[in-house]
Amino acid sequence: MTAHSLPEQSSGSPVYIGVDLGGTNIVAGAVGSGGSLLEKIKQPTRAERGSAAVLKDIAEMIGALAGKMRSAGLAVAAAGIGCPGFVDPKRGVCAYANNLGWREIPVADELSRLSGGLPVFADNDVRMYVYGEAVCGAGAGHGHVLGVTLGTGMACAFVDNGRLFYGGGCMAGEIGHILMDDIPYRCSCGQTGCLETAVSATGIARQAAEKLRAGADSLLRAKLGTDAAERVTAADVSAGYDEGDALCVEIMERTGMWLGRALAIACTFYSPDIVVIGGGASLAGERLLAPARKTMRERLLPELAARIAVTTAALTDDAGVIGSALFAGRQLQTRGG
Amino acid sequence: MTAHSLPEQSSGSPVYIGVDLGGTNIVAGAVGSGGSLLEKIKQPTRAERGSAAVLKDIAEMIGALAGKMRSAGLAVAAAGIGCPGFVDPKRGVCAYANNLGWREIPVADELSRLSGGLPVFADNDVRMYVYGEAVCGAGAGHGHVLGVTLGTGMACAFVDNGRLFYGGGCMAGEIGHILMDDIPYRCSCGQTGCLETAVSATGIARQAAEKLRAGADSLLRAKLGTDAAERVTAADVSAGYDEGDALCVEIMERTGMWLGRALAIACTFYSPDIVVIGGGASLAGERLLAPARKTMRERLLPELAARIAVTTAALTDDAGVIGSALFAGRQLQTRGG
Repeated sequence: MTAHSLPEQSSGSPVYIGVDLGGTNIVAGAVGSGGSLLEKIKQPTRAERGSAAVLKDIAEMIGALAGKMRSAGLAVAAAGIGCPGFVDPKRGVCAYANNLGWREIPVADELSRLSGGLPVFADNDVRMYVYGEAVCGAGAGHGHVLGVTLGTGMACAFVDNGRLFYGGGCMAGEIGHILMDDIPYRCSCGQTGCLETAVSATGIARQAAEKLRAGADSLLRAKLGTDAAERVTAADVSAGYDEGDALCVEIMERTGMWLGRALAIACTFYSPDIVVIGGGASLAGERLLAPARKTMRERLLPELAARIAVTTAALTDDAGVIGSALFAGRQLQTRGG
Repeated sequence: MTAHSLPEQSSGSPVYIGVDLGGTNIVAGAVGSGGSLLEKIKQPTRAERGSAAVLKDIAEMIGALAGKMRSAGLAVAAAGIGCPGFVDPKRGVCAYANNLGWREIPVADELSRLSGGLPVFADNDVRMYVYGEAVCGAGAGHGHVLGVTLGTGMACAFVDNGRLFYGGGCMAGEIGHILMDDIPYRCSCGQTGCLETAVSATGIARQAAEKLRAGADSLLRAKLGTDAAERVTAADVSAGYDEGDALCVEIMERTGMWLGRALAIACTFYSPDIVVIGGGASLAGERLLAPARKTMRERLLPELAARIAVTTAALTDDAGVIGSALFAGRQLQTRGG
């Protein structure tokens, strides 16, 4: 995809760069002010090299995208980056990211310095993903959007008429750490029964692995071989569901039920107009959403159940990049930069 | 209490009237812009007479307070009213109040008309209560305040740096309708297991009544006689707790445990800096809060548990009146009235 192929981006309107920083990959893109993705690049994170090397890579990606935009006659006005873990968007600091091994990294300032003073804004990756979906994805046109991501972990964010909800310490939305008494797994946070240990891509695979180890009959054995329990992924369970494998169906329906219970509670607190489910495990689509919706409606005030739609993300892989870019644009305007 | 006795209210600064409309009583007060209650009056609601009669009474109460303020050389700039049920604050309409039998009542417009054009703002009673506590009660000085009221029912509201959180349809905060699988009671909303059926003044009495009917041994029998199950109140259970009555201790601890579970979830979604517990049942104080805090900490992310304090309301009975009045003042400024 090149900038030239997108005629709706006129040379006068600004372009923003969005970066989605994950434990495995860094994805960066140039985004038009209307949310169109003009160009996208991707490379491995290799976090073991330390934060300085990762930030240098990101700055180079920003530089490469800015160069391409310049060649197309477009000016980059700012960059935004979504980082995993706890991020303080006011200071642009990643306070703690477990899977990167980061603590108190001044992401925004450092990237700005490495990018010749370009304004850079940093926030949490889930908030950026949900912001993207809320502004120009599945939540577009709705005033109150609750977004939930199901990936390695599970988290949520809420966008209220274009404004992200942060809470004290910018720590709101940790839906993955709600406890369910019938979830038996120990979480890396120290608690037992956290929703994300079962309701996430990792959690779906964990449930399947546990059942396979316990001797459950399943097509997964024939497909994955003797070490099926070690190799099984959420995508395998989703495929097994489509083939009618009883174990896979059971896991998907139970996961959907837990998701539905959590959504009923989340909707009771936030009262969104729409719930957008994203992240890797959301690729399971209706296999997960149908049981989730059923349980959610059974456990939600009728007045809320009647108004709240549940759907999958529309921008999927690109939501984080687009969200980070548009967030940067908005911050630039808000701060009068 | 008279206006003359409160010298801190100078004649130049505005006074606001706050009204707390309940199913049993209407309480109205004149409040200084700093939150001091200058004068308070109260009368029975008698909702069976219909909304027109109730609104006429409220307008007369507003008129009486405004007259007294005028005599003291103070001018009333606006009035605010907290109504039970679903209220749309933009239109000032009480969409639905079950215990008043109201549907689509234009409270703000009607009260303004009956009060000679005085600006009047209407919102939900729990939001007004929590707003009062957040601005000049137990939450004062904290940026993110979660308030929970335990009265006939149970609800919550969240104040984010002085701004109330509403959600879609202004229906956020229905914590009383979260389902707990070990709560057996049927709720008036149609669901079974709603938190407010057990965790509220009504719910505490309900639990005691059920146990007494089932033959439980308790000091409550000697105190309340043969019809103890019909007469028992939350205050009786609280008093019985202080006397070491095993049944009352069990009920208070179980209620606190359920409250703690709900607070852990609420804090995970909202991430407040402080939780303020108000409403009639909050008079139980530490009898309820100690077990609630214990359960909440056991079920909350350590990072959140470390930062969030739980306390009882400071303005108690007056929070609704003060909150409604200050809310009116704020709306007046925001709307440039």
